[in-house]
Amino acid sequence: MTSPQRPPSTGSLTALLEPHSVAIIGASDNPTRIGGRPLHYTKNAGFSGAIYPVNPNRDTVQGLPAFASIGDVPGPVDTAIVAVPASTVVATAEDCASAGVKAIVIFSAGFAEMGEEGQRHQAALSRIASSTGMRIVGPNCLGVYNAEHGFFGTFTTTFEAGRPQTGRVGIVSQSGAYGAHLSLLATRRGIGIRFWVTTGNECDVTVAETIGWLANHPDVSVIVAYAEGIRDRDRLFAALALAHERRKPVIFQKVGRTEIGAAAVQSHTASLAGSDAVYEGVFRQFGVYRTTSTEEMLDVAYAASFGTFPSSRRVGLLSISGGVGVQMADEAVQRGLDVTPMSEAAQAKLKAMLPFASPRNPVDITAHAFNDPGLVGTNLDVMLAEGTYDSIVAFFTYVAAAESMVGPISDSMRAAKAAHPECLLVLSIVGPREVVARYEEAGCPVFEDPTRAVRAVDALSRFSQSFARPLSDVTLPQRLTRPLPAGPIGEAVAKELFAEAGVATVNERLCVTADDAVSAADALGFPVALKIASPDMLHKTDIGGVVLGLNSAAEVSDAFDAVTGRARMAAPDAQIDGALVSRMVTGGVETIMGVQQDPTFGPVVMFGLGGVLVEVLKDVAFRVAPFDVAEAHRMMRELRGFPLLEGVRGRPRGDIAATASALAALSRFAAAHQDDLESAELNPVVVLPEGQGLVALDALIVPKA
Amino acid sequence: MTSPQRPPSTGSLTALLEPHSVAIIGASDNPTRIGGRPLHYTKNAGFSGAIYPVNPNRDTVQGLPAFASIGDVPGPVDTAIVAVPASTVVATAEDCASAGVKAIVIFSAGFAEMGEEGQRHQAALSRIASSTGMRIVGPNCLGVYNAEHGFFGTFTTTFEAGRPQTGRVGIVSQSGAYGAHLSLLATRRGIGIRFWVTTGNECDVTVAETIGWLANHPDVSVIVAYAEGIRDRDRLFAALALAHERRKPVIFQKVGRTEIGAAAVQSHTASLAGSDAVYEGVFRQFGVYRTTSTEEMLDVAYAASFGTFPSSRRVGLLSISGGVGVQMADEAVQRGLDVTPMSEAAQAKLKAMLPFASPRNPVDITAHAFNDPGLVGTNLDVMLAEGTYDSIVAFFTYVAAAESMVGPISDSMRAAKAAHPECLLVLSIVGPREVVARYEEAGCPVFEDPTRAVRAVDALSRFSQSFARPLSDVTLPQRLTRPLPAGPIGEAVAKELFAEAGVATVNERLCVTADDAVSAADALGFPVALKIASPDMLHKTDIGGVVLGLNSAAEVSDAFDAVTGRARMAAPDAQIDGALVSRMVTGGVETIMGVQQDPTFGPVVMFGLGGVLVEVLKDVAFRVAPFDVAEAHRMMRELRGFPLLEGVRGRPRGDIAATASALAALSRFAAAHQDDLESAELNPVVVLPEGQGLVALDALIVPKA
Repeated sequence: MTSPQRPPSTGSLTALLEPHSVAIIGASDNPTRIGGRPLHYTKNAGFSGAIYPVNPNRDTVQGLPAFASIGDVPGPVDTAIVAVPASTVVATAEDCASAGVKAIVIFSAGFAEMGEEGQRHQAALSRIASSTGMRIVGPNCLGVYNAEHGFFGTFTTTFEAGRPQTGRVGIVSQSGAYGAHLSLLATRRGIGIRFWVTTGNECDVTVAETIGWLANHPDVSVIVAYAEGIRDRDRLFAALALAHERRKPVIFQKVGRTEIGAAAVQSHTASLAGSDAVYEGVFRQFGVYRTTSTEEMLDVAYAASFGTFPSSRRVGLLSISGGVGVQMADEAVQRGLDVTPMSEAAQAKLKAMLPFASPRNPVDITAHAFNDPGLVGTNLDVMLAEGTYDSIVAFFTYVAAAESMVGPISDSMRAAKAAHPECLLVLSIVGPREVVARYEEAGCPVFEDPTRAVRAVDALSRFSQSFARPLSDVTLPQRLTRPLPAGPIGEAVAKELFAEAGVATVNERLCVTADDAVSAADALGFPVALKIASPDMLHKTDIGGVVLGLNSAAEVSDAFDAVTGRARMAAPDAQIDGALVSRMVTGGVETIMGVQQDPTFGPVVMFGLGGVLVEVLKDVAFRVAPFDVAEAHRMMRELRGFPLLEGVRGRPRGDIAATASALAALSRFAAAHQDDLESAELNPVVVLPEGQGLVALDALIVPKA
Repeated sequence: MTSPQRPPSTGSLTALLEPHSVAIIGASDNPTRIGGRPLHYTKNAGFSGAIYPVNPNRDTVQGLPAFASIGDVPGPVDTAIVAVPASTVVATAEDCASAGVKAIVIFSAGFAEMGEEGQRHQAALSRIASSTGMRIVGPNCLGVYNAEHGFFGTFTTTFEAGRPQTGRVGIVSQSGAYGAHLSLLATRRGIGIRFWVTTGNECDVTVAETIGWLANHPDVSVIVAYAEGIRDRDRLFAALALAHERRKPVIFQKVGRTEIGAAAVQSHTASLAGSDAVYEGVFRQFGVYRTTSTEEMLDVAYAASFGTFPSSRRVGLLSISGGVGVQMADEAVQRGLDVTPMSEAAQAKLKAMLPFASPRNPVDITAHAFNDPGLVGTNLDVMLAEGTYDSIVAFFTYVAAAESMVGPISDSMRAAKAAHPECLLVLSIVGPREVVARYEEAGCPVFEDPTRAVRAVDALSRFSQSFARPLSDVTLPQRLTRPLPAGPIGEAVAKELFAEAGVATVNERLCVTADDAVSAADALGFPVALKIASPDMLHKTDIGGVVLGLNSAAEVSDAFDAVTGRARMAAPDAQIDGALVSRMVTGGVETIMGVQQDPTFGPVVMFGLGGVLVEVLKDVAFRVAPFDVAEAHRMMRELRGFPLLEGVRGRPRGDIAATASALAALSRFAAAHQDDLESAELNPVVVLPEGQGLVALDALIVPKA
């Protein structure tokens, strides 16, 4: 008996993650066994709800009364931990659902990752979740925890190295082992974790849904996510949009960046890893900070948990070492931060206080400033009051960790934060944990490495920029308004469709004879280009089907005969409609625009600069369709070759506005044809000088089979 | 009275860094004062030589008999620490020299960094060093230490946070504060430091010389260097060549990468920061690993101190988490490491041992393997024996840090290292210092972060590649064999000079009249290019002095008149020799070659790919001249656009061998003309398909004024 599919709601993770009562099925009396750990941890962590060990062979487990089955538990159960052999998991899940358990967490492995039989069992679990409404985490996961409530539904052994402290960071990881690694490193770093979820094989609860639930939770202000692949476009987008609306930074590690990586993902998990460039586009579209290392992930999460997101890219650098000042400036400039100098007046003030200082920016106060620790504060005040900086990074290393320094310097920092709460003040200090904590309490993130401190400023100011802009609406239209024409689509028709959609295509004529071609060339004006017209030939240049720069009637006539002849030789069965004649377009910058169907994200749009940049450097940007003109502008600016469109070495600036409009139009076209368009490409699209628009010289539309 | 300049020898730092006797001038009884710290540290560190405090106001200092002046010290003094006010430093240095002190270390600030008077005093110190042979470190430095001998001639306060342990790493830093920061972080990391030198204002002893001394010292196997600028080309090159010969990795942080950074360097130090791209070229030329962060610097030094440099780029990845396996594979592939899969047979073996493992590479043994810790070793054995890997990175995180695991797993590692000593085995483990030490003792570098572990493998295999190749000889010729012609050099002469030097230039004729030009075109064959010929016009295109693609006698004749007319209009006083007519070169890849005089490194050669790659992406590589063909090959391969020369999308492969020969020839030309050549450029140089060579279409030589 199946009930209609329940639309999953983010609200329903509340019973799972904030349970009033917990059952542990397969509870062990041995606190080091998989079935013993969650009980041991939760019992000793001050969890105030009911805990019900389920074990048919014992009266008590770890001192608590035990129950023979989930059905025997006397009170309602919000969350049940399932630590039983894989073969009995499905039956256990059914029992839980019958007993009215609201959510279960399945540790057991041996499902989709282990061949067909496992896949069948996992499918059965998915059906139980969708038919009964009971939420299921896992299988093959390391569990979940809620550090604030003392609910530790996990068998990770990392707690031996330190129990997590509560805080405002939410962590969700598809991988259990990696999630535990993250939890441990965060704990050692002093980062407080509010919720921690590992989703494993994701038969029901996914990383995407968990992000949404965390975004909605008032106690969470930073979200850290790790995934090998995402399956649910709309759920992910809704979650990221909610996080954006609530100004909660999302820091995401998506592995499988490279080809070999992607292969390993496919062999390891049931995930379908999408193209990495598309993920990159999605993350940028939603203002997600993507990281490629654990360290960067935790650095950014740590800094973000202080809650100050600088509203500009202007950064002030304060150092007790000129060399490190330069090192920080190098890093900041490389990251596109604005290391703008202090005003002359402010420099004079600093110089008056500390004659040996270098007051420009970086401001080098030298270690001698610590002979009078008050000077650090007064220098900082000048930078804050007169420097127009929204972030300051100060390198004090061990000097600020000395016993005699911690008090006065941390007081200066606290006072500075009180006077300028909107300014992000990041310190580079080397000292024991308790010293670092003093500076953290003053409101300042602390890094050992000055370069990492600068990276954190970059990350936080990117969040600020993202929070300040509206997200482009990526909702796909419900129904096609007008389907693509049936059958293969020739270049001429493709160009018409694009022109209607809002992407200008070159003015050209379909000519059936050589004489037609000559007349068309006369009418359009020389020089012209001539191309084979056939819906069956996608790669015209490969068969010699394109001739450029024809300057006379004779050249046009010869070219018509040559091109149609070569086409007939190359593909005797192809439908040949004649040749297209168009006026040559000269000048401008060649670009390429394309549409692809991504298996996860549906229609996506690609933009790149033509020629070597695309072919050798793969300098392209992706976005999920549809998107607006503002998003198109951001997309274009991601290209390393973007300055080419702005005009280099005296060449004219290209029509950037027209390009952005065309990309947005193409994205609407892609979204409208999500169901009948396989792929599309406009290549080259020549972007003409500012005010003159652009023109696509070739166009290709491949309908879905 | 000045004696002739003594050629500094690296041997002479021995008295400084391995003194038998030490004097502290300005010694303080207070062990926390600048003049008290070095005495306090050295006295308590087991230094076996004599220690002589010098202080005219006391009989004893910190319990040792004190002397009124350096002249009163009874025995010979190898090294004297100078901790006196700036105003008395020069006199103190003179006293030291008179007393026969072999080396002094000047802490005092207030010299070249503080205006003209300071510069004069510093120059006086330099003169004392060169005239007497007494070596001087500083002024404005934090001192030196020799951890093995217990000589701590420094006033750094970092020792409060932990005294450095001795080891095989030598550190030299121009910046004192940064050097101390490095020392502290290395110490906290468990890295043993043999020698530590801060050079400050470098009135005598430089970073370059110190590198050479460390390279020569049998107890040092890894060299870490930090500098804002280098002044002595030959000293640096000799030092780096010695380190290369002794297979000692040099890890270098040179700050001032970006423009604002460079500005700050100039205002902060007396250094002349060379162009960063040139430094980049120098480091690559000598196999130096350049870092941009402290963390990377210490990571690489730490891993290198284990002494295994993998002889190939093939890396095996072992993980207890499939996701982290992918993450490591991503990083490895991104860094150009070879994540080659295990053989089918080896995969079958692994699968037989652990049916749930993913045996390809990354090899995912899952955390369940730790149920039988012996399995970790047997899996590793299969990877080592059958995987053809020269490095393996294993991610075990906290799982391998559990009490019960450390013994068996570290035994497995020790056995693996014994059986395969040439294989670099890097672990990613999170655990307390004592656990990490157990794995280190087994011969394995340990990183918390798996991404950083992969980076270390990349770095160490780069060293291995560098050690395996001979360095290209950069010795500049002593005398010019034939000077450049006097006066401005026109394009035609420049081309002849380059052709003689070994860089093919386009076949062209100097034509004085339009008729000459037509005859030349007839002889060369159409189409031709025509360019103004004038030694006074460097940028011919700017004045319309170049016309391409002339197809007929009439076009050539018209172009001659137009070009010479425009030139006369643009520069009425210029000497106009006529026009150069050359056959048009079509096809091939446009590149650019150039020569510049670098203020530090002298003649350097630049290579880039023409057009957008140079103009927008600044995709160029530098090398110090002269260099050989092998070096030219490496230089070319640094370009991101290099695949363009290898042929992309069906285009022919370019003549890479001819390009390398031309670059090496250009470098010999640059070296031969170090004294009379300001700059030179060949642009474009068209690299033709393989076997057809290359041809420079335009050439420019600017002699020194």
